[in-house]
Amino acid sequence: MAVFMNLDTTRAFAELRRYAEPPRLDTLLNAARVRACEVPMGGGLSFNWAACPIDAPRLAVLKALAAEMELIEKFRMIAKGEEMNPGEKRMVLHHLARGELAGPVVRAGRDYRAFYEGERRKIAEFAKAVHEGRIRGSSGKVFTTVVQVGIGGSDLGPRALYLALERWAKATGRFKLAARFISNVDPDDADSVIAQIDPAATLFILVSKSGTTQETLANENLVRARLAALGLDPAKHLVAVTSETSPLAKSPNYLASFFMDDYIGGRYSSTSSVGGAILSLALGPETFAELLTGAHEEDLLALEPELERNPALLDALIGIYERNVLGWSATAVLPYAEPLARFPAHLQQLDMESNGKRVNRFGEPVAYATGPLVFGEPGTNGQHSFYQLLHQGTDIVPLQFIGFRENQMSADILSEGSSSRAKLDANLVAQIVAFAVGKSDTDGNKHFPGGRPSSLIHGERLDARALGALLAHYENKVAFQGLAWNLNSFDQEGVQLGKVLAKKVLAGLDPAASGVEGALGAYAALLGLPSAGVANAARG
Amino acid sequence: MAVFMNLDTTRAFAELRRYAEPPRLDTLLNAARVRACEVPMGGGLSFNWAACPIDAPRLAVLKALAAEMELIEKFRMIAKGEEMNPGEKRMVLHHLARGELAGPVVRAGRDYRAFYEGERRKIAEFAKAVHEGRIRGSSGKVFTTVVQVGIGGSDLGPRALYLALERWAKATGRFKLAARFISNVDPDDADSVIAQIDPAATLFILVSKSGTTQETLANENLVRARLAALGLDPAKHLVAVTSETSPLAKSPNYLASFFMDDYIGGRYSSTSSVGGAILSLALGPETFAELLTGAHEEDLLALEPELERNPALLDALIGIYERNVLGWSATAVLPYAEPLARFPAHLQQLDMESNGKRVNRFGEPVAYATGPLVFGEPGTNGQHSFYQLLHQGTDIVPLQFIGFRENQMSADILSEGSSSRAKLDANLVAQIVAFAVGKSDTDGNKHFPGGRPSSLIHGERLDARALGALLAHYENKVAFQGLAWNLNSFDQEGVQLGKVLAKKVLAGLDPAASGVEGALGAYAALLGLPSAGVANAARG
Repeated sequence: MAVFMNLDTTRAFAELRRYAEPPRLDTLLNAARVRACEVPMGGGLSFNWAACPIDAPRLAVLKALAAEMELIEKFRMIAKGEEMNPGEKRMVLHHLARGELAGPVVRAGRDYRAFYEGERRKIAEFAKAVHEGRIRGSSGKVFTTVVQVGIGGSDLGPRALYLALERWAKATGRFKLAARFISNVDPDDADSVIAQIDPAATLFILVSKSGTTQETLANENLVRARLAALGLDPAKHLVAVTSETSPLAKSPNYLASFFMDDYIGGRYSSTSSVGGAILSLALGPETFAELLTGAHEEDLLALEPELERNPALLDALIGIYERNVLGWSATAVLPYAEPLARFPAHLQQLDMESNGKRVNRFGEPVAYATGPLVFGEPGTNGQHSFYQLLHQGTDIVPLQFIGFRENQMSADILSEGSSSRAKLDANLVAQIVAFAVGKSDTDGNKHFPGGRPSSLIHGERLDARALGALLAHYENKVAFQGLAWNLNSFDQEGVQLGKVLAKKVLAGLDPAASGVEGALGAYAALLGLPSAGVANAARG
Repeated sequence: MAVFMNLDTTRAFAELRRYAEPPRLDTLLNAARVRACEVPMGGGLSFNWAACPIDAPRLAVLKALAAEMELIEKFRMIAKGEEMNPGEKRMVLHHLARGELAGPVVRAGRDYRAFYEGERRKIAEFAKAVHEGRIRGSSGKVFTTVVQVGIGGSDLGPRALYLALERWAKATGRFKLAARFISNVDPDDADSVIAQIDPAATLFILVSKSGTTQETLANENLVRARLAALGLDPAKHLVAVTSETSPLAKSPNYLASFFMDDYIGGRYSSTSSVGGAILSLALGPETFAELLTGAHEEDLLALEPELERNPALLDALIGIYERNVLGWSATAVLPYAEPLARFPAHLQQLDMESNGKRVNRFGEPVAYATGPLVFGEPGTNGQHSFYQLLHQGTDIVPLQFIGFRENQMSADILSEGSSSRAKLDANLVAQIVAFAVGKSDTDGNKHFPGGRPSSLIHGERLDARALGALLAHYENKVAFQGLAWNLNSFDQEGVQLGKVLAKKVLAGLDPAASGVEGALGAYAALLGLPSAGVANAARG
């Protein structure tokens, strides 16, 4: 059994801290290094770390850190179904939704790989029946649109993946149903989506593991009311993705129920039924299966003992050096691919909700920085926006570039002697080198200090398999960083207090109260909420 | 004439640094303070700073800092048309697009207020002709869709504003044309938009001040090719927003040209013709005029000498204390309003491109942190995503909440005794207090340290006037912070190096080159770009 320890108690970290300054990227970076720093990933992708602030001595210390902290052994504990979410006393099984990494996981007579695979097959059958028109809306219309109703992990991941593959599915003849998403409790979200679709031809997927998510239940009520007002039978237009024990499970109010469980957290659920239902319905079950294949290929590499062949572990440890030794507090994700427009928003949740923690897995405060702030927008758009700060700001932000050789749609145009695709990739290449090397100028305003590191994930084309590998890479990177920081990356106690106080506001506040309750009441008054509580006001 | 000085040379900043720790928010925050910290803004909005780490002694130092640095006097220099963009030797006149703040600005016989107002009127006339069907597509179809083709400031601001008002315009009967946006040079962006519209009924707005923006010209060529392939006359489907001296101006290739000039930078151009054309066409000229009214109301407050009545200056100086004394390096913008989904992306450009600088207005490196990293997503969505880190992460991130009492669309639904609107606002209120006050727990994992500050901008409903004030507030906040940091907030030299290197890649690299060119070549090979250069390859 591996020993869990804080990062700052290790010999290797003490050694790493001796490298308090990054190596000079302008002397480090050259063509040979670019070719040498290629690491194969799943799905035909590669991870290139040539422009990262890691030279041979630093790499040796990262290897020592991985060994001393037994990071791969701990990752294997996840894969084997150990209780790696100690706060909630749960296994962590999202990898099993793609395939077995370390043999079967069987608990209380349930084989979990078989369970997840069984749900995937149920979804595939259901999706086929919808595509073939055997399952239709209550007025007899064939379904042409599918709407996911969920929030957080039930929204960001599936939405990012759908957008990433929508064009590709259309170009390759796989496209089945248009997908839309309702997440925010702001009723302007749901009503705006409903105004843009034909409800009679729309299937809604309710996604809530517990069946008690406030926003999702409110939006379900809204959707049911709108359907009923049109004379449609809501029970013929809704399916549920939920846990077997939730009030939504096997209810006659749904056309079908597909299951998830407590061993796959929301932000890791895109490859479970949570992503499976919407992606199989919109883009076909084969597309979803290929996504899982790519993810599984990438997962297997996370167990690779040699650091230079383990892209997630390498990416993770480079990030630890940047965060905990160099003191850089944010990471930008910059996909040069418009279809990945919302992928950074998914990674923002994945990373910040997993590792934005101040206590270790035993509940003790740690004395080092943990999860960074993650943000990003597609290139080249970002170049005309926040790149000014990235190039010449007073803080250094490590960058994660993503790029492809080919478009998803076949069309392109020549303009000034080059295609738009060539312009896109030329800009990507130029930015990596500009950030790393900079450019001296006696005019301070035109001086680029350089020394701004980046990695590059690249591949032939963004298809379902490549996307699965990309998704799994970041999941595994985040898991490795959580292990290095000795965190529980799989709970999220930090979201609870806000929920409790929101319920308090809705239930009613004493207008004469002082302290916390008084402050809540004063803010509630600014927003026009009745001080006696909304529920009471509705009852009264 | 005001004296320009670095922040760290002032007496007031030396005084401010004595407050190296924030005041305790859990003791500071109460109902009376919430009521006392209300500052009226334009457009019927208010700025509330009750949960900011500012008590009476700190506020006094901020006032001294504003006085010593003559910040309002310097803002007045902007309003009067002084050369406040020294790097490019330009005036900074975006305020004049909304109204005069400090009398007329006349240079070389041109009255700039009259010029901007004249362009607005030209656009209003043109929009009316389109709405009334007097101007139609080349096949005779009435225009039903308008597509903005632009990038950076020509995209993010107008897109965020359109999305912010689309639902409201529909609910109030102002909605005219559906708007779409093409920005990325990735051809998957443009082709995906074109696939979703009827080109025969679509008007395209080409937005490029110089008429030489690589991405926008490539997308223009793509749009023209697609229109021509359908037998449509591109010249009858395109208008240009550009400078009077650009190759796009008064060309027979456009139905009309509307003008901007060098005195309004891209990220400040939403209230010029850049935002005016698309917003007037999509949502009506009256809507755009109301947006300008709200912005002008807010602009006037930026000249208010009393700090507690000057919301932009107050917001700016609180941010200076947080960034330069408390050492917090990011700011999250959290609108509890789905229509503001892309507003944080606009602010990200506005702030990071303006103040992400390492040299002062004289080109000398500064020894203090400048512009923060800005990011955000709408609430309540963010609560289920990155709020975990905001509550319990190891870094403190100041928060900027935005909320409204009413929806834009009238519909809502009661669920568990409260409306969705009440749930949304109850969550907003709860988060402010939860972040500020925290909650002690002996279980470290359930312990909330609190002390995480926020401000709140709130109003009755997000309409055009409120949105204009919101936009102007942030523009003016960013300007004040740039003045406090002694920066030129109005140029963006940091975007140049990447452009130069991208052209180098497209023109051709020596495959045997070493150093920077060698690294460029090696990366280009990974992305499948021919080493001899794309232009040469296309010619050869």
